[in-house]
Amino acid sequence: MAGIDFQALPAADDVGRDMHELVRELFPICRSITGNGLRRTLELIGERVPLEISEVPSGTQVLDWTVPQEWNLDDAWIEGPDGERVVDLRDSNLHVLGYSVPVRERLPLTALKEHLFSLPEHPDWIPFRNSYYSPNWGFCLQHRRLVTLPEGEYEVCIDSTLEDGSLTYGEAFVRGETEDEVLVSGYADHPSMANDNLSGVALMTTLAQHLAGMRLRYSYRFLFSPGTIGPITWLARNEERLGRVKHGLVCLCVGDSGPLTYKKSRRSDAEVDRAARLVLRDSGEPFEVHEWEPWGGDERQFNSPGFDLPVGTLTRSAPGSFPEYHTSADDLDFVRPEALGASFHAYMSVFDVLETNATYVNLSPKGEPQLGRRGLYRSMGAGPDAGVDEFALLWVLNLADGEHTLVDMAERSGLRYAQVRDAARTLEAHALLEVRA
Amino acid sequence: MAGIDFQALPAADDVGRDMHELVRELFPICRSITGNGLRRTLELIGERVPLEISEVPSGTQVLDWTVPQEWNLDDAWIEGPDGERVVDLRDSNLHVLGYSVPVRERLPLTALKEHLFSLPEHPDWIPFRNSYYSPNWGFCLQHRRLVTLPEGEYEVCIDSTLEDGSLTYGEAFVRGETEDEVLVSGYADHPSMANDNLSGVALMTTLAQHLAGMRLRYSYRFLFSPGTIGPITWLARNEERLGRVKHGLVCLCVGDSGPLTYKKSRRSDAEVDRAARLVLRDSGEPFEVHEWEPWGGDERQFNSPGFDLPVGTLTRSAPGSFPEYHTSADDLDFVRPEALGASFHAYMSVFDVLETNATYVNLSPKGEPQLGRRGLYRSMGAGPDAGVDEFALLWVLNLADGEHTLVDMAERSGLRYAQVRDAARTLEAHALLEVRA
Amino acid sequence: MAGIDFQALPAADDVGRDMHELVRELFPICRSITGNGLRRTLELIGERVPLEISEVPSGTQVLDWTVPQEWNLDDAWIEGPDGERVVDLRDSNLHVLGYSVPVRERLPLTALKEHLFSLPEHPDWIPFRNSYYSPNWGFCLQHRRLVTLPEGEYEVCIDSTLEDGSLTYGEAFVRGETEDEVLVSGYADHPSMANDNLSGVALMTTLAQHLAGMRLRYSYRFLFSPGTIGPITWLARNEERLGRVKHGLVCLCVGDSGPLTYKKSRRSDAEVDRAARLVLRDSGEPFEVHEWEPWGGDERQFNSPGFDLPVGTLTRSAPGSFPEYHTSADDLDFVRPEALGASFHAYMSVFDVLETNATYVNLSPKGEPQLGRRGLYRSMGAGPDAGVDEFALLWVLNLADGEHTLVDMAERSGLRYAQVRDAARTLEAHALLEVRA
Repeated sequence: MAGIDFQALPAADDVGRDMHELVRELFPICRSITGNGLRRTLELIGERVPLEISEVPSGTQVLDWTVPQEWNLDDAWIEGPDGERVVDLRDSNLHVLGYSVPVRERLPLTALKEHLFSLPEHPDWIPFRNSYYSPNWGFCLQHRRLVTLPEGEYEVCIDSTLEDGSLTYGEAFVRGETEDEVLVSGYADHPSMANDNLSGVALMTTLAQHLAGMRLRYSYRFLFSPGTIGPITWLARNEERLGRVKHGLVCLCVGDSGPLTYKKSRRSDAEVDRAARLVLRDSGEPFEVHEWEPWGGDERQFNSPGFDLPVGTLTRSAPGSFPEYHTSADDLDFVRPEALGASFHAYMSVFDVLETNATYVNLSPKGEPQLGRRGLYRSMGAGPDAGVDEFALLWVLNLADGEHTLVDMAERSGLRYAQVRDAARTLEAHALLEVRA
Repeated sequence: MAGIDFQALPAADDVGRDMHELVRELFPICRSITGNGLRRTLELIGERVPLEISEVPSGTQVLDWTVPQEWNLDDAWIEGPDGERVVDLRDSNLHVLGYSVPVRERLPLTALKEHLFSLPEHPDWIPFRNSYYSPNWGFCLQHRRLVTLPEGEYEVCIDSTLEDGSLTYGEAFVRGETEDEVLVSGYADHPSMANDNLSGVALMTTLAQHLAGMRLRYSYRFLFSPGTIGPITWLARNEERLGRVKHGLVCLCVGDSGPLTYKKSRRSDAEVDRAARLVLRDSGEPFEVHEWEPWGGDERQFNSPGFDLPVGTLTRSAPGSFPEYHTSADDLDFVRPEALGASFHAYMSVFDVLETNATYVNLSPKGEPQLGRRGLYRSMGAGPDAGVDEFALLWVLNLADGEHTLVDMAERSGLRYAQVRDAARTLEAHALLEVRA
Repeated sequence: MAGIDFQALPAADDVGRDMHELVRELFPICRSITGNGLRRTLELIGERVPLEISEVPSGTQVLDWTVPQEWNLDDAWIEGPDGERVVDLRDSNLHVLGYSVPVRERLPLTALKEHLFSLPEHPDWIPFRNSYYSPNWGFCLQHRRLVTLPEGEYEVCIDSTLEDGSLTYGEAFVRGETEDEVLVSGYADHPSMANDNLSGVALMTTLAQHLAGMRLRYSYRFLFSPGTIGPITWLARNEERLGRVKHGLVCLCVGDSGPLTYKKSRRSDAEVDRAARLVLRDSGEPFEVHEWEPWGGDERQFNSPGFDLPVGTLTRSAPGSFPEYHTSADDLDFVRPEALGASFHAYMSVFDVLETNATYVNLSPKGEPQLGRRGLYRSMGAGPDAGVDEFALLWVLNLADGEHTLVDMAERSGLRYAQVRDAARTLEAHALLEVRA
């Protein structure tokens, strides 16, 4: 039970700054669920961690779905009656409805408005909209701009291609001592929004970097793919190997200032559910734990009843719960280095629970062993000696009946998981405890 | 899973007025646990729904009990020292202690008082009292009247008969597709009290009327019988057929203005318990759910440990919890048409849950099926399309693993049962779902 | 199911005064975990109840421990620079650090202070300290005295012996109808502190006195031994017979004014846990129920995972929760006769639950039996007849399906255990109930 080598990890602020840099680098790329923007994103990730790239041709059947045609976008704008550009892709990647079919035409404002999307309640923000599976075209813009458009003829141009190509995803794999895997999945397709989900992309990249070289019980797989269709494609192509996935986390929205939030897997009491709850409980910070519900991000696919994988979702603010979600206000300022750094440590702490959790047997189970002669007990009077977490030692000894894991012990005792884990290590070192065979 | 055809049902106010009319018609009849008043009551019910009448001779052994002699009452009064009638049966059926033996004698006030019952805390109300199994006679009267009785000799007359005869009960049976039965039982013996339990008699009659002709999975049996001895007699005579009773409700006190109240069966988590709780939860109105306890109405017999039938009790104010209970204040004004109508719909909604509840299997269980290409998903942006309850579709798909019923799904999701049921219908229509074989 | 003969028990105040007398008699004795003070204590207990005394030689291996050398103390004092005695054993047995090695030397105040213990937060109290397993010597004294000690040379004398001898414990055994045992254990080694634990010693003695002669289902064993090493020694020597221990209570701190407090066994839902909770719930007084935790008194050993005996702890204020704990302020005034008396009755009530609890079968399980013809039901109208606890009769009949014990019934119904027990006795007398074979 080596566990995560926390000594080898950078401080939260340092690693948070690094992640924020990566978010900044990836931010300008024009991404969608297929195409060159997604490819370029994976290429930049691949400069940091070894990434295995898969290309799946358009038209491939994946579960109940079909891989769509590939979409690429070169230019897009709207010119007003006086020839002024009133919307231009160069100002924001969000201006174009994702998967817009190519268009070049003139039309009056009334007809144009059927293709314009804005947020009246947030007039300065550009919304993020797509039409992946139903051919359409459109522009998203600030409501404040929309209402000032004069009557007249407009010229619109969307210079996009929608053609047979492929869907791209990447996997970073960190090999551990066993083939049992911890799967971490986050979507990498969204265009210029920082928290949703460049924060997750940056965190997954950084986790993979720091796990590499550690002595690990589990292998770790980080899946960077487009939302919904990405996990579906990966699941379809890896169906025979899913038995290896022992635990999983969906990684998104990990950079805002909200409290760490864990959404349980469909199973509700999977080991990863209990591990994450303990990590959040022990953090000393406010946190939220949400029950499973069948909407959100990639977890929808992993937790479908035909797979029912134990995959939870560890975010800061829950996706959809903050007003900036799916708008241009989810920008580089919305994501904070210190929040990214704290998320990094929370993920590593969950991994540590998974790495170290085991069922233990007390080797001196009849009566309390005499801790005093082993230097593990106060010699006199009230209060344990400094450096000896007597309460944790006693709890671990008491519950180590071959039926309780360290997670069970931390839950029942109310002690922090790290206390219980360290007490188990101490007792193992004194030959008072061993992992159940 | 046809379920209840709610379109075919009358509006709550209309059906409530009809039920109130029936209560009014039955109110004047002088009833007891045997005798002609009970027979006449069943006769009037039989004019509305086909009723199978049973007569069980006095002296018949039924479980631990014996069918008592039949009691009929022609006249009863008390004359004061000055010859004035101070109590007269013609003023209220409640004036006579139920099952009073015949008496005609003169006696002084002091001796008479041992046979007089009143309610000092409600001096204007006449209490309802009986002495079914211990020979006695007596009168019930307003306390205000009692305290003004002058000293002197009184003449009392109770012109009753207590002779071998029979106990009468009636059953309305609505045949469904299977022999599995939903049993609804309510006592029909109480004299002139509207809520307890002419309200239940009227509701059972009306439910039977409206179920007739519907396509139903279960058969429905409505048992109108005298309290305690009625269900005991029915159970004794139907012991071999009780396996057919899959669910049951005891129906009483359904016409007052109190909140709908469900008292669980002894099993506590029978399907009918969960169905009733969901219906009340979904009603949007205040409601109460009470734990099982072994007193109350007919449920005492069905839930005895030797039968342990899953029979709950669905009332408005719990019997005994309102001061008018078992007094002359439980009159025609105490029962309100709108309350009766709402109770009718609540019962029908419980039946609908029982009719439609089933365990489902998702036919596309790996990943989410692509709802969009089936017109079941928003095509663009935030929020589902009008008319598509996307959240309910996703919940049903997610939990339809062959282990969850619709009731399970409604409980876990927090969605209304009707949402879950309708989503299942939609998914069945799209060949995405089927009932587990 | 005879149960405890509460009629034969003395009133709480009377028995409380007797127990307080015994506490007063034992208070002056200088005790430790071995030695003549403990022997003398057991001798005085043995004058009241037959006690089997065991002497276990120093050096004997007991589980993971070794029986220590025997410690006896004849005299101890400190003389100040001016020859005045500043600390003297004759003033308080607490003045000497338990198991102090012999010492006779002169030393300056600075060096002496390393051997002095006081309580700055309670300057008038003498703390209680020991060093059983690590050779040391020291004195405990009032902080107020400590701070006034002048600089200079002090002479210290501890006239103790630490030699091979034996550890002493005593058992009072009350034989019941079966060999199944209820074990009550309390430590008897602490010097002059009244609540911790002469109160427990007095209570155990008095319980044994009053149980003797009663007709009992269980045998009762009262173990008076030194803390920690005592139960460990007893467990080591009785390992083959532990299967007889069906229930147990650790008895300490039962004389202060705090509320009755029950600490659950490691199993949490053992019969004794449920019995004790019911007794406290039914007491009508404030009470506390604490979850198991692996520190405290003798329960640590009985509840170690290799034994996992169902042994709870029934105290008044939880040990360690009151400031007087392990100080000279835990004196004869801190323990009150009425509190001791109430503890006596609480223990007897727990024994009564254990004695009478059983699984019952209703002999007339189909429908309610007709209680009226057996004189067990109101004949008329509202409310049961005086002397008949109708609700308890109905609950017991309803739950007596061969799967519920009286404890189950008291928990589910919310009725007092005594009501349920008495109802079962009544129904047995009427041949309506029997214990499940």
